[in-house]
Amino acid sequence: MANSRFEYVKSFERESYLLPSSWIVIRVDGRGFHKFSDKYKFAKPNDIRALNLMNAAAKALMNNITEVILAYGDSDEYSFVLGRNCQLFERREAKLVSTFASTFTANYITLWNQFFSKEPLDPTFLPTFDSRAVLYPTDQSLRDYLAWRQADCHINNLYNTSFWALVLKGGMTPNDAESELCGTISKDKHEILFTRFGINYNAENEMFKKGTLIIRELKDIAEAEMTATPVVSTHTGPAILSKRQLERIEKRRRKADINVLHTDIIKDDFWLERSWILKG
Amino acid sequence: MANSRFEYVKSFERESYLLPSSWIVIRVDGRGFHKFSDKYKFAKPNDIRALNLMNAAAKALMNNITEVILAYGDSDEYSFVLGRNCQLFERREAKLVSTFASTFTANYITLWNQFFSKEPLDPTFLPTFDSRAVLYPTDQSLRDYLAWRQADCHINNLYNTSFWALVLKGGMTPNDAESELCGTISKDKHEILFTRFGINYNAENEMFKKGTLIIRELKDIAEAEMTATPVVSTHTGPAILSKRQLERIEKRRRKADINVLHTDIIKDDFWLERSWILKG
Amino acid sequence: MANSRFEYVKSFERESYLLPSSWIVIRVDGRGFHKFSDKYKFAKPNDIRALNLMNAAAKALMNNITEVILAYGDSDEYSFVLGRNCQLFERREAKLVSTFASTFTANYITLWNQFFSKEPLDPTFLPTFDSRAVLYPTDQSLRDYLAWRQADCHINNLYNTSFWALVLKGGMTPNDAESELCGTISKDKHEILFTRFGINYNAENEMFKKGTLIIRELKDIAEAEMTATPVVSTHTGPAILSKRQLERIEKRRRKADINVLHTDIIKDDFWLERSWILKG
Amino acid sequence: MANSRFEYVKSFERESYLLPSSWIVIRVDGRGFHKFSDKYKFAKPNDIRALNLMNAAAKALMNNITEVILAYGDSDEYSFVLGRNCQLFERREAKLVSTFASTFTANYITLWNQFFSKEPLDPTFLPTFDSRAVLYPTDQSLRDYLAWRQADCHINNLYNTSFWALVLKGGMTPNDAESELCGTISKDKHEILFTRFGINYNAENEMFKKGTLIIRELKDIAEAEMTATPVVSTHTGPAILSKRQLERIEKRRRKADINVLHTDIIKDDFWLERSWILKG
Repeated sequence: MANSRFEYVKSFERESYLLPSSWIVIRVDGRGFHKFSDKYKFAKPNDIRALNLMNAAAKALMNNITEVILAYGDSDEYSFVLGRNCQLFERREAKLVSTFASTFTANYITLWNQFFSKEPLDPTFLPTFDSRAVLYPTDQSLRDYLAWRQADCHINNLYNTSFWALVLKGGMTPNDAESELCGTISKDKHEILFTRFGINYNAENEMFKKGTLIIRELKDIAEAEMTATPVVSTHTGPAILSKRQLERIEKRRRKADINVLHTDIIKDDFWLERSWILKG
Repeated sequence: MANSRFEYVKSFERESYLLPSSWIVIRVDGRGFHKFSDKYKFAKPNDIRALNLMNAAAKALMNNITEVILAYGDSDEYSFVLGRNCQLFERREAKLVSTFASTFTANYITLWNQFFSKEPLDPTFLPTFDSRAVLYPTDQSLRDYLAWRQADCHINNLYNTSFWALVLKGGMTPNDAESELCGTISKDKHEILFTRFGINYNAENEMFKKGTLIIRELKDIAEAEMTATPVVSTHTGPAILSKRQLERIEKRRRKADINVLHTDIIKDDFWLERSWILKG
Repeated sequence: MANSRFEYVKSFERESYLLPSSWIVIRVDGRGFHKFSDKYKFAKPNDIRALNLMNAAAKALMNNITEVILAYGDSDEYSFVLGRNCQLFERREAKLVSTFASTFTANYITLWNQFFSKEPLDPTFLPTFDSRAVLYPTDQSLRDYLAWRQADCHINNLYNTSFWALVLKGGMTPNDAESELCGTISKDKHEILFTRFGINYNAENEMFKKGTLIIRELKDIAEAEMTATPVVSTHTGPAILSKRQLERIEKRRRKADINVLHTDIIKDDFWLERSWILKG
Repeated sequence: MANSRFEYVKSFERESYLLPSSWIVIRVDGRGFHKFSDKYKFAKPNDIRALNLMNAAAKALMNNITEVILAYGDSDEYSFVLGRNCQLFERREAKLVSTFASTFTANYITLWNQFFSKEPLDPTFLPTFDSRAVLYPTDQSLRDYLAWRQADCHINNLYNTSFWALVLKGGMTPNDAESELCGTISKDKHEILFTRFGINYNAENEMFKKGTLIIRELKDIAEAEMTATPVVSTHTGPAILSKRQLERIEKRRRKADINVLHTDIIKDDFWLERSWILKG
């Protein structure tokens, strides 16, 4: 072929395959969303339209990429969890990372008008997202990752709720509000909110306080997979399923309910109720 | 802080920094565009609306990410070239790869209606793109990469033009057309096109035959950079410029013309005319 | 400093840090040991001096690098296991891989004369070893790795014992011996050995059949670590121990017995008897 | 085969292939040589036996690994340069890094008695080396890497010569000597050496001041390679040579002189005299 003399350049491409048998988390982050939220007049401290749009885009991604087991999001970020044995794109890092960023972006933009009908997107100021893949080799480290994001959501939201109460209701300048909150602990912020503004933080919107969990309810499939008689019987290695079994499972994944929750994922309860997640 | 006991999970994140002083190529590829082009009724063998949309999305990306020096695209792919000393995102691979995929997708979708006004996007069947980053350490390997893509464009287009002529004008089945072309060389395909269908391949649309090159015309800036007195005089290492110089250069990058060409980039002429590209 | 203008080249160095909380296996392999074993007249199919030398070098390495929990070796290779939380060299891959190759080589050469007193090393034909690091995220995959190496040892040894019996005792040419064994299964080889040469394979040297396991007996330490009151109490993340606790543990590691075994590590028994290994 | 059910663990191995067409530098470093040099009573500030041993080990490595073009060493480190098109071990990083560490160690230990006949090696305190691979994509960055090491050698040696003169000849404590040198520039140290101890630094041993360069004199081969008619004629990509041509070149590499120099490699002269190095 005429192009063979150039084809050697293909050998400069390096693939990074993510370690097998580890949990994969792909976290998608809004790029420059501080400025973006100003431009499109997001309400402070939380814009419920923006959060619902994030959730809708994440759910759409999960409809499209059925390998995602669960997702957790808050603010302008979303973390998607792929199972230990997930073979999507042969676990190629760049392919995974770019596809999730692209798919999330595509849905976010397409869904925009449903949530921001009064704020049409300016073609020169579009929302974009970057993403990264992280491996978690143990179940505990995966749970701790999700706990980390939810604890972060809580801390940021308590701070932001207090800050914007001081600014918007208390009439403080941003600088003064910042000074006021400097050095305060959780209890102090609850106190400020309640005493000065009559806000009971515990009664705030659960989505603001806990973020959003989206879960594909695979209980039946997880059990089916475990009871399926693998083609090659083995107690080691990933069970090798027949093509027909794989298709049946893929069909069930597609049909599985996808639920949206605002619930505690730090404590054990959630994980005990859905013990199939870590077993699967 | 309350979340400190979970924060250790951050240590599981690995950054891959791309080797300094090498050319970076980021290639964005349409995902499943065979099916996608059927769904939205792309004309065969080339849909001029689809190609113009790709070009418009690439140009929009270059307006947004001023570090891109040039881009080459054909079919459903686009390659973006970043300079040897480019420090965008500290050369972090996942950040680069995901941002380019997201930004390209955002623009492609936003511009869709300008080019496909009669084919509104189905929210359950959106265009998405993956991407990868490849390093080229020598100028020759960068040129050969671009030559590889252009040679590929030519070969594919000659084949597709012949194939679809046989099918659409010659009334052949796809299978018969494939058999007919099997084993033919370039000359044979020219012959088939001319004799049977009166098509002079050489007179075909340059964009179809050569793909599209988008170039930020930085000649003046490249020269300015080279003549700028760096803060630390040195014949080695990247010249360190003052903050003011950097701002001036960034401003010029923003203002530089971005030209769209359909030209040969395999032979030397293009590179001699724009010798600042490889010098820069 | 005078050399600052060159120091930028340091930024071209990339560190690869191995994923935390995963088992690390470092496998050291003899380079060109086929030729090497001819040169130094290794007995076939097994040279007991050569195997004892490998074991002595591995044990010496474990005396030197106390982070190694256990090692398994056969023929000209040795696999060293580092714990999930091992922080040796901050888990830097090149540092680990090169240090193990160097330390193993240093001990192998230094111990050579004890085992091969009649075959002095030729300075132009020295033994060298390469090495690689592999991560195993689950306990099962670590066990399966070790089972893989031991199964491999068994298969190779049965083949080699049969092959060399045919050649050395049966007077066959190597080619004929190879043909004879082609297509035979385990049972056939046992039969050949017993019927033709009166060799009961099951009575062969355990070291030849099972390879060698070297284990640092850390039972007490593993328990001590688990019962130690960590400075920061937490059910997540690696327990943070006080400097004094760390020193005490390090001292115990140094003093721990290092045992050499030729035992089955495929079945559960070994792992149940030493359940602290996977718990640790 | 009986072991197939475990063989899946092989898929956990990741190879890192170093970018083609870039210079590879492999730097071997003594581990804990501060303590090591005390144990074996190295003379201060420079032990000529120890440096000659390093050089002999490096030369032996170059005799063994003919792909090394040149090496530069000082103190307890050595950097080996492999050419842009070097295909040794398919450019696999772990294989390269571990083999160089092992081969250097093997030769260092084997050659020890020639240089330290009065200090036999203690088997529990052996010399070991780690190593790393670094890529340099441009000729300038390779030169700057070597210049960096040589500038470092010079700076350290001037400091150490001054420090040990103050301690050994001036009777100062190490602490006082350190204070004395704190804040001094190059000129001050020359002055201290000359005025107080009658030492003319410029007359010191060139090996101490400049380190050691070992070069395989490949001029003829480089020219032969360039004039060889490649099997596939191409101005791009690495020329593909016939098997016979490759063998001829390999033979010449083996026969090429290996010279040991103590010369300036920072300035242009060295590189102009041996222009085939960067051309090759």
